[in-house]
Amino acid sequence: VAKRLEKFKTTIFTQMSMLAVKHGAINLGQGFPNFDGPDFVKEAAIEAIKAGKNQYARGYGVPELNSAVAERFLKDSGLQIDPDKEVTVTSGCTEAIAATILGLINPGDEVILFAPFYDSYEATLSMAGANVKAITLRPPDFAVPLEELKAAVSKNTRAIMINTPHNPTGKMFTREELEFIADLCKENDVLLFADEVYDKLAFEADHISMASIPGMYERTVTMNSLGKTFSLTGWKIGWAIAPPHLTWGVRQAHSFLTFATSTPMQSAAAAALRAPDSYFEELKRDYGAKKALLVDGLKAAGFIVYPSSGTYFVMVDHTPFGFDNDIEFCEYLIREVGVVAIPPSVFYLNPEDGKNLVRFTFCKDDDTLRAAVDRMKAKL
Amino acid sequence: VAKRLEKFKTTIFTQMSMLAVKHGAINLGQGFPNFDGPDFVKEAAIEAIKAGKNQYARGYGVPELNSAVAERFLKDSGLQIDPDKEVTVTSGCTEAIAATILGLINPGDEVILFAPFYDSYEATLSMAGANVKAITLRPPDFAVPLEELKAAVSKNTRAIMINTPHNPTGKMFTREELEFIADLCKENDVLLFADEVYDKLAFEADHISMASIPGMYERTVTMNSLGKTFSLTGWKIGWAIAPPHLTWGVRQAHSFLTFATSTPMQSAAAAALRAPDSYFEELKRDYGAKKALLVDGLKAAGFIVYPSSGTYFVMVDHTPFGFDNDIEFCEYLIREVGVVAIPPSVFYLNPEDGKNLVRFTFCKDDDTLRAAVDRMKAKL
Ligand SMILES: CSCCC(=O)C(=O)O
Ligand SMILES: CSCCC(=O)C(=O)O
Repeated sequence: VAKRLEKFKTTIFTQMSMLAVKHGAINLGQGFPNFDGPDFVKEAAIEAIKAGKNQYARGYGVPELNSAVAERFLKDSGLQIDPDKEVTVTSGCTEAIAATILGLINPGDEVILFAPFYDSYEATLSMAGANVKAITLRPPDFAVPLEELKAAVSKNTRAIMINTPHNPTGKMFTREELEFIADLCKENDVLLFADEVYDKLAFEADHISMASIPGMYERTVTMNSLGKTFSLTGWKIGWAIAPPHLTWGVRQAHSFLTFATSTPMQSAAAAALRAPDSYFEELKRDYGAKKALLVDGLKAAGFIVYPSSGTYFVMVDHTPFGFDNDIEFCEYLIREVGVVAIPPSVFYLNPEDGKNLVRFTFCKDDDTLRAAVDRMKAKL
Repeated sequence: VAKRLEKFKTTIFTQMSMLAVKHGAINLGQGFPNFDGPDFVKEAAIEAIKAGKNQYARGYGVPELNSAVAERFLKDSGLQIDPDKEVTVTSGCTEAIAATILGLINPGDEVILFAPFYDSYEATLSMAGANVKAITLRPPDFAVPLEELKAAVSKNTRAIMINTPHNPTGKMFTREELEFIADLCKENDVLLFADEVYDKLAFEADHISMASIPGMYERTVTMNSLGKTFSLTGWKIGWAIAPPHLTWGVRQAHSFLTFATSTPMQSAAAAALRAPDSYFEELKRDYGAKKALLVDGLKAAGFIVYPSSGTYFVMVDHTPFGFDNDIEFCEYLIREVGVVAIPPSVFYLNPEDGKNLVRFTFCKDDDTLRAAVDRMKAKL
């Protein structure tokens, strides 16, 4: 294996999903729904396949999807963009992240992340030869330590990467935090990479897109995807929105990483993004109820539960149960309780920072959530 | 844009396909069929979507596809492999190439290519920080210059990358060439990356997989895909086959480039690979007839046509028409004749080497091929 990837292990999502199957445990680990996506989107995919939309797509996206992404972005963020010059369709947001980093970051560039972070951030930054600095968000509220962040920005800083709503904590960056980060970017000529795949799962306040903060669009790559919003995580349709000079780099990397993304699925994604407002409202309402169900259950089982205001994840502290760290706790949880969760220490540069924490997802049907809660209440 | 991608332009396939649309020209450029893939494969995709196979696949492939790839490989190459440990499903062969190179090549490693080469090889090697050496295959037969190749191998050589049947020349590496390369790899402890996506389009002799040469499997990554064999280039399902120690590197890069590939399309790909022998025979027969139609037409139009024994491409020499180089010729061909072809100079480290050549594809219905030939006979 190449040195750039030596330190990385099999992603925790794969490990945990395999353990879930092996032990017949209820999987509240990796974030994929155990219910299906909406029929109108599946029908659109079927129609596209039947209609013969089965050959190479335009490399940066089929025109109807690029347009649908731009329309959605206008609706959500108030920003008018050119679908042909500022949208790049990718094979999931994971590829958008890789293409952004490999397309825009040079060896030796410094990139600032907020820990905990989705594991691909650090791995693709390593592929790009970047130096990673991580600012740790700490419980209970996972607020951005503003002065620490400011002190971390140096003349080598090329980009700051955020994820809001934030996986794995459920935190949403506040307007004040976003504006503080925006000012740092503008003052120091730093790019901003925003992974906003959970933007439609914002329970208490509206999601704020970093690109909509005045002066930020021109230095921001906004990444999103179909999977979370439409309960179709297996379709792997994502996109990156950026001004033309940044889009150029993203597209260059994209064209050599995958060249293009599945044509019929892109067609269906365009139909999905044009869903009526009621679809998004219902999604949020459903997930709000699931969140309440899980949070109440976790509290009743004895966890210290941190507030989750976005995503379909909730972070808890397992120390009341007396385990040394999150890995040991999660192993016990799988084997003795029959529930899979994600140990978050792998999402920190320093694993110690995550050792008291565990992440649960509530993107499961209510019966599954109830069964998991019952097991934890009975056996923890 | 990051330095690693500075020298690369918009891929020629995208450029030419856009020009084709703009000028209403007949597109014999990028290699995608203008006819649809087989119904049984499309039906399998539709069934998978309806059956709710719409969430994240296992990162390295859904079990049924990994198994189908292994069965196919046994049938085609006589090699028995472990579907769970030696197959990685990717988002098209382009991603298999990127994952192989980023997963196994370190900065400063030397990799030997044969020019002309598919443009992503050089670009992903640049992303990996590799030093690229290219051995040029020259007309009329594009034979491997054995002594030149041998002299190019040094103590820094980490891998040799081949593509057989070969895009864009239509050359198939002979058993003697493969054995010579295999000996070089074994003597110098060099890896072999084999892009074999056109293996089912071998018109005169059977395709020989490099992995089947004695002693080579353990040092070879074999890449293939669904698109060319099943006329579904837009589905973007590919895979890499390699022994476990190499698969580890490929999977690490893959999990951070795209994480997983479209679940329902993988399910359909498994059905496709289990097609009866008659499917593959018919494909070859159909393409053989198309090749004859195009080759005869190109000769009649006045080109010097080089023999193509595999792929759905044919390489010709345009010098009889008096243009300075391939770009100028192709521009004239689009604007004045109404036919799009690919100028191959972009596939050489030294563009001069390709300046007399032009690549045509015959993956189009017969009427389209006839119309293109008629235009060229009338207007060149
Ligand atoms: C490929 S896993 C993507 C993110 C997610 O689903 C998770 O964090 O569980
Ligand atoms: C993404 S283009 C892949 C190869 C091909 O189709 C071509 O060479 O035309």
